Amino acid sequence: MKQVFFGLFLALGTTGFAQSQSDEEMIKRIFDFELTKGQSYEMLDYLSNRIGGRLSGSPQAAAAVEFTRQQMLSYGFDTVFLQPVMVPHWVRGRLEVARIVNSKRLGSLDMTICAIGNSVGTGEGGITAGIIEVQSLDELKVLGKKNIEGKIVFFNRGFDQTKITTFSAYGGAVDQRGSGASEAARYGAVGVVVRSMASNHDDVPHTGALNYEEDAPRIPAVAISTVDADVLSEALKKEKDLKFYFEDHCQMLPDVLSYNVVGEIHGSEKPKEYIIVGGHLDSWDLGDGAHDDGAGCVQSIEVLRIMKELGYKPKHSIRAVMFMNEENGLRGGKKYLELAKANNEKHLAALESDSGGFSPRGFRSSGNEQVREKLQSWRFMLEPYGLYDFSGEGGGADIGPLGDTGTVLFGLYPDSQRYFNYHHTISDTFDKVNKRELELGAAAMASLVYLIDQNGLQ
Amino acid sequence: MKQVFFGLFLALGTTGFAQSQSDEEMIKRIFDFELTKGQSYEMLDYLSNRIGGRLSGSPQAAAAVEFTRQQMLSYGFDTVFLQPVMVPHWVRGRLEVARIVNSKRLGSLDMTICAIGNSVGTGEGGITAGIIEVQSLDELKVLGKKNIEGKIVFFNRGFDQTKITTFSAYGGAVDQRGSGASEAARYGAVGVVVRSMASNHDDVPHTGALNYEEDAPRIPAVAISTVDADVLSEALKKEKDLKFYFEDHCQMLPDVLSYNVVGEIHGSEKPKEYIIVGGHLDSWDLGDGAHDDGAGCVQSIEVLRIMKELGYKPKHSIRAVMFMNEENGLRGGKKYLELAKANNEKHLAALESDSGGFSPRGFRSSGNEQVREKLQSWRFMLEPYGLYDFSGEGGGADIGPLGDTGTVLFGLYPDSQRYFNYHHTISDTFDKVNKRELELGAAAMASLVYLIDQNGLQ
Repeated sequence: MKQVFFGLFLALGTTGFAQSQSDEEMIKRIFDFELTKGQSYEMLDYLSNRIGGRLSGSPQAAAAVEFTRQQMLSYGFDTVFLQPVMVPHWVRGRLEVARIVNSKRLGSLDMTICAIGNSVGTGEGGITAGIIEVQSLDELKVLGKKNIEGKIVFFNRGFDQTKITTFSAYGGAVDQRGSGASEAARYGAVGVVVRSMASNHDDVPHTGALNYEEDAPRIPAVAISTVDADVLSEALKKEKDLKFYFEDHCQMLPDVLSYNVVGEIHGSEKPKEYIIVGGHLDSWDLGDGAHDDGAGCVQSIEVLRIMKELGYKPKHSIRAVMFMNEENGLRGGKKYLELAKANNEKHLAALESDSGGFSPRGFRSSGNEQVREKLQSWRFMLEPYGLYDFSGEGGGADIGPLGDTGTVLFGLYPDSQRYFNYHHTISDTFDKVNKRELELGAAAMASLVYLIDQNGLQ
Repeated sequence: MKQVFFGLFLALGTTGFAQSQSDEEMIKRIFDFELTKGQSYEMLDYLSNRIGGRLSGSPQAAAAVEFTRQQMLSYGFDTVFLQPVMVPHWVRGRLEVARIVNSKRLGSLDMTICAIGNSVGTGEGGITAGIIEVQSLDELKVLGKKNIEGKIVFFNRGFDQTKITTFSAYGGAVDQRGSGASEAARYGAVGVVVRSMASNHDDVPHTGALNYEEDAPRIPAVAISTVDADVLSEALKKEKDLKFYFEDHCQMLPDVLSYNVVGEIHGSEKPKEYIIVGGHLDSWDLGDGAHDDGAGCVQSIEVLRIMKELGYKPKHSIRAVMFMNEENGLRGGKKYLELAKANNEKHLAALESDSGGFSPRGFRSSGNEQVREKLQSWRFMLEPYGLYDFSGEGGGADIGPLGDTGTVLFGLYPDSQRYFNYHHTISDTFDKVNKRELELGAAAMASLVYLIDQNGLQ
């Protein structure tokens, strides 16, 4: 196999045509290899089923660091190392409970909720208060302190189902989860209940992070399932003076030492110029984080493994980066940038997979017109593998900080229809991942990294 | 809403630009409507969970005829009628059993199998015989009668996982299931065991139809799970003289009266010219036939419902056809053609959805260069909805017979990666269908029918 490739590479770069011909051959070899000898699915099985949910600071997060470190060593990458980073350590504590307390029609009715990450807990006894429904942060201004003070605010704006990409629907609703607590607290709210960030209608609440602003009181925030959000909303239409109770025991503990895990294949021509592929190793605690973002981690390791197994010697140094703490702090992404600057590492491109392990459809990019033209010029080689969409803006949360240094950012763009049925829930589990879809994503990433390594982005 | 549309349609057809502008608006309305007010998912829930597997001739098939008839009547289509057709009535009978009988290493080892549709059964006592593994029909010639006579033939050629579209892998293996029994019988085989037509590696056997040829003895045929196919193959490498036992009680009963179900919206300009959309109402008996092909049936009904709800008056008559007996006889498709000829109906185009209810990626077509150019000219309007691939040859089994009359055939082309994990198994159930993916397919079909109705195919 290697012989074939050495032969192939001698033929490279003579003419654009010869280049694109050998590019097409290499891309076919990448897909053929991954679809027949891929190990991404087995790695994800271990990460999901043997380790499980791995929130920053948890024992499982530590296990995931050691597992991916050993895995990359076992594949014989040129170097594998850890980047120490202090991460927040938020814990959910005892199971959350909630109910409508005093409905004349419904009596006492239990509601399905979960604490929102980084939230303070209610502690023993919980919170019982009147509850007022709003559709947006702006609506708080209109209602003002007189209507909000002492109450629980219920943010109930759902996904816009007409958005074809579910990430657009998510982007249009997630401000309620991220900023709702601090915004409501400014008007004297005692707690917030947020409609789950979900594409579907079911009994499963979706967690995720909130950000407390410094100048606002910190009040407890929970997410409610879409089914119960509708029940609650209907109940409020009929009885304005409903009382709502919820109790949770989550808390933020002192920071914990954790790590980004980095595997590298040294570049043969430009060892000090880097192309990185990554995902985030931490996940929420409810499911096993198979799609978010176990998939991106194993796909990133697989990119380097594919190159090694195919005997491909990259011109640039290629790294697989397992970022820690994307979900509730982004400390790993910030630490990676800090160290890259300290070590004067030039990062040509960074590719993140953090949109689930579904059939890949293309790539998002932060690049300028020149980069987009380059991507378009590669389209004819990628479309046979179902990769056709290179139009969108994007990259990834963990690689975002690198963007400021001029690094061109790319994000794998998989089919998004199923993602927000599972995202941040007990349903994000290994059985929701299809082996071939995961492998197609890994091969797509390896193909893009190969094309950038061979042809650059200029 | 209707007012808006009448206004819109007055503006139609003045210039190509105006046309494509109003086409884009209409396509957006179609997708917006289906993603917010779609009923395809609820219909499929009933068909899958309340009726279930509906093999031709079964009580469930009769229930599915009545359900879809009433459903289309409830939507107020201009006419809903049945096309009587006699269908084969194959029944599985008691659960199948199989085992390796005499392995020195493994002793007696149970194997997971299911009878292949249309097969004769073994009857009480089953079949016990030596078993010989082959990779292809051609290999039978090489082995000849001396090696095959009195034995069970084990066809074990798996899917080519390097095919990006799993239908290509299926097409490369399915001859073993369809023709293996008759081919092996010619060399004196007493039964056949066929590796399941599957993309994945698990314990679930996949049924499907075989065709007995007139000039060959009819011997029993069963499908074995991919996991047990590998176990059996390994066992045969170590012990050539293994004996294999299987017993099943399937049989073909006399033909039964059944029906195609047809709903129609009359054309306003060319009522005698038809554009049809369809799927097949029958399914295999093991699962509930949600993907194969409940999805195609409810999507086809939805196409007409969308047009009606949006107040769109088609120029041509549009029909939703629920074809009966695609799985093991194609009697419904042949009957539809027979009646179309008898009634001198001109069919401009026929669109079938029979590749699962997954995210749509484009359409296959039987059309000539002119038709393909037409499809390409519409691509810019469809790509925003994830529809980009119009290159493939294809249509659908049920509409196939119409092709001979000059009707242009189209097949919805969804993402294929998951299909052959479920196809023809107990795993083809409603919970495997994603609501938005199903709806995107229905809206894609409605959009193509709209574009053909407005712009023709010339």
